[in-house]
Amino acid sequence: MELSEIISFSKKNGFVFPSSEIYGGFSSCYDFGPLGVELKRNIKNYWWQKMFQRNNMAGLDSAILMNPAVWQASGHLTSGFADELVECKKCHHRFRKDHIKGECPDCKGKLTSPQQFNLMMKTFVGPVEDKTAQTFLRAETCQGIYLNFQNVLQSTRKKVPFGIAQIGKSFRNEITPKNFIFRTREFEQMEMQWFCHPKEAEKFFDFWLQQRLDWYKELGIKDLRTVEIPEKERAHYAKKQVDIEYKFPFGWKELEGIHYRGDWDLSNHAKHSKKDLRYHDQERKEKYFPHIIETSVGVERLFFTILCSSLKEVEGGRSEKSKKEKEIVLKINKKLAPFKAAVFPLVKNKDKVVKKAKEVFQLLNNFSVYYDETGSIGKRYRRADQVGVFWTITIDFDSLEDNTVTIRNRDTMEQKRVKIKDLKECFTKEFLLTD
Amino acid sequence: MELSEIISFSKKNGFVFPSSEIYGGFSSCYDFGPLGVELKRNIKNYWWQKMFQRNNMAGLDSAILMNPAVWQASGHLTSGFADELVECKKCHHRFRKDHIKGECPDCKGKLTSPQQFNLMMKTFVGPVEDKTAQTFLRAETCQGIYLNFQNVLQSTRKKVPFGIAQIGKSFRNEITPKNFIFRTREFEQMEMQWFCHPKEAEKFFDFWLQQRLDWYKELGIKDLRTVEIPEKERAHYAKKQVDIEYKFPFGWKELEGIHYRGDWDLSNHAKHSKKDLRYHDQERKEKYFPHIIETSVGVERLFFTILCSSLKEVEGGRSEKSKKEKEIVLKINKKLAPFKAAVFPLVKNKDKVVKKAKEVFQLLNNFSVYYDETGSIGKRYRRADQVGVFWTITIDFDSLEDNTVTIRNRDTMEQKRVKIKDLKECFTKEFLLTD
Repeated sequence: MELSEIISFSKKNGFVFPSSEIYGGFSSCYDFGPLGVELKRNIKNYWWQKMFQRNNMAGLDSAILMNPAVWQASGHLTSGFADELVECKKCHHRFRKDHIKGECPDCKGKLTSPQQFNLMMKTFVGPVEDKTAQTFLRAETCQGIYLNFQNVLQSTRKKVPFGIAQIGKSFRNEITPKNFIFRTREFEQMEMQWFCHPKEAEKFFDFWLQQRLDWYKELGIKDLRTVEIPEKERAHYAKKQVDIEYKFPFGWKELEGIHYRGDWDLSNHAKHSKKDLRYHDQERKEKYFPHIIETSVGVERLFFTILCSSLKEVEGGRSEKSKKEKEIVLKINKKLAPFKAAVFPLVKNKDKVVKKAKEVFQLLNNFSVYYDETGSIGKRYRRADQVGVFWTITIDFDSLEDNTVTIRNRDTMEQKRVKIKDLKECFTKEFLLTD
Repeated sequence: MELSEIISFSKKNGFVFPSSEIYGGFSSCYDFGPLGVELKRNIKNYWWQKMFQRNNMAGLDSAILMNPAVWQASGHLTSGFADELVECKKCHHRFRKDHIKGECPDCKGKLTSPQQFNLMMKTFVGPVEDKTAQTFLRAETCQGIYLNFQNVLQSTRKKVPFGIAQIGKSFRNEITPKNFIFRTREFEQMEMQWFCHPKEAEKFFDFWLQQRLDWYKELGIKDLRTVEIPEKERAHYAKKQVDIEYKFPFGWKELEGIHYRGDWDLSNHAKHSKKDLRYHDQERKEKYFPHIIETSVGVERLFFTILCSSLKEVEGGRSEKSKKEKEIVLKINKKLAPFKAAVFPLVKNKDKVVKKAKEVFQLLNNFSVYYDETGSIGKRYRRADQVGVFWTITIDFDSLEDNTVTIRNRDTMEQKRVKIKDLKECFTKEFLLTD
């Protein structure tokens, strides 16, 4: 599907709205609507679950606001975290150098030579607004992990190798955010930092790259490739970097980065804070800075990837037999589907059928289910398919006699008859107890 | 328990760490450690679940960065959202007027007359840093809800009365944040806005106040009272306000606010954006600004309340029979417990017992469970009780014969013998299928 179609699908169905839309929008910010917020929650919860399973992992939720000394030590305030900015000499618009060629697109004016433009977003904390009160919105969540490395060790009694996982917002003052929610100034990261002995770093790099690829496969995302990034193009902290790229409507782009950060972060924080952040390895009888393997993916970018890869146009007649136009089905992984099921009374003008359908809806109200009685049954199927509802449950006249309902599977279109009293167990098995 | 004991408990057990601690901390910011992040997630997920059950509700996740026009319309940039600030004429320290009396506590200097100090935190977006690029970190999540009122209506086909729920970070540049995580500059809100006909506002105010009180009761929080706030002390948008207060170690303070905001927000945004934000009520054949009932609670403040109300000192001998010192038990609601269970081999020097215990741990690894084999069994019970683990599961020599384990309940101390093959079902019933 084309980008413009995905954007309009997202707005119409309550996945993504432009932020501050009634005021003409704002700065490529986006809001996540009723279905978007559920998809986002499902993505985050599934990532969290996957990261912890069978891995030696601790979680963290550190603050967006940190001591500015952190960004000095991490290299983000120096040249390490800046884009090259050029300005049009005529209209004074500003652009990222690598996004523009030769002249200014607005007025054909000449461009200045490039300047370093730092991507950290500034704010002031406390009742005095001057340099001493200045800090930054974090540009990556992982710094909070490094700062708390010793705190986590002490409170959990973990031993290297182990990981710390975190989900949270970061901010980057991109000169030109673009491509819908692919690159935004405010975004949410899911990052995991794996602390290991330097000698094991290579092994774990491969392990985590494979884990992440396996997860995307489980999610049903195809069109992926891995690209090793050459030294010149790597982030300032990276000794090795492999990007997992997805084929977006505008080409192959990074979805997730796997970074071997060496001891860059811990040793720099040790130097700047004058604290000993080395790990005392009692088995190896060695004291060292653990090396770090990072996996880092943006929630919005993965959200976008999932929409791109799940939105399918299919031949008409699937849900509404008489209709010929193409239908849209969001073939999203059932763990991620904003709604697991929809409950329909076959007809809305028979009180007993409606009453029974509402009872079924009440019974399942812990499972992300909605109730719909408006329009023909075909139309309701179609609406459900469009937003990826995995099961549609219909209550008909037979239901009044035998207390069974029909469950239709979105992907196979198979229908089966299930007893109402078994529904909760069916849902539990299908959605809660699966890995 | 005293405040200082709660703070040290929180750090030691990985609930709350001071942010940027290795750099001497920063501005009353806090990080949530491995157990804190789980408690926070459980609080948010439970609130989300409760809000949606049996209510006509939609979710939202709007951006922190918004068009600054939003804050003009909402009244936050004018006098409505400011504290009175005084400065010491001698040492130039600044204080909130209502937190200080007569003279400066640091140097006994005289204070200036009070000035209005706006609590919005400023930042700059885009490649030019001047007034046109200036915006603010949101000071309340609900504005994102009002801006999207029409978007949500259209995408969900909901009808008034209905609610929009949102969880997200807000920022307030408090002059003097204090009392641990009770008042911080960066915090997370759980807000619900209920849109209704003006004539039904009073009824729904009472309904939502009662819903919120019922939830706190379910969570096991006692020591609550409600206080109606007189007009003079109310927020600038509130026509009526009832605070649910909790008895913190430093006295009765607001936990949650229930606000009747009338049509303040929608009518002001309609005026400033020149968009028609009225609701077309087809049943009543009326066009009007729905009135809003808001429920608003801070995640960190509720987290703190839960620690205060759950941390209990009990007589010694409960877990380790020989020990006389008092033991700490975190008697937290099982839905909120960071760990639902811990798995112990009775002894660590019998391979078969350890192997079986690890199998049980693997079996349950979707349920927030940890494995512990270090120290005596009494010590492991004690550690589990301290962080609120609801079930402790012990694998002993009998387990090798009959494939059963002992489950101990944290609160009743009752032990029961359960078959390993039934464990998953026990967990599902106890933790997943309860309301």
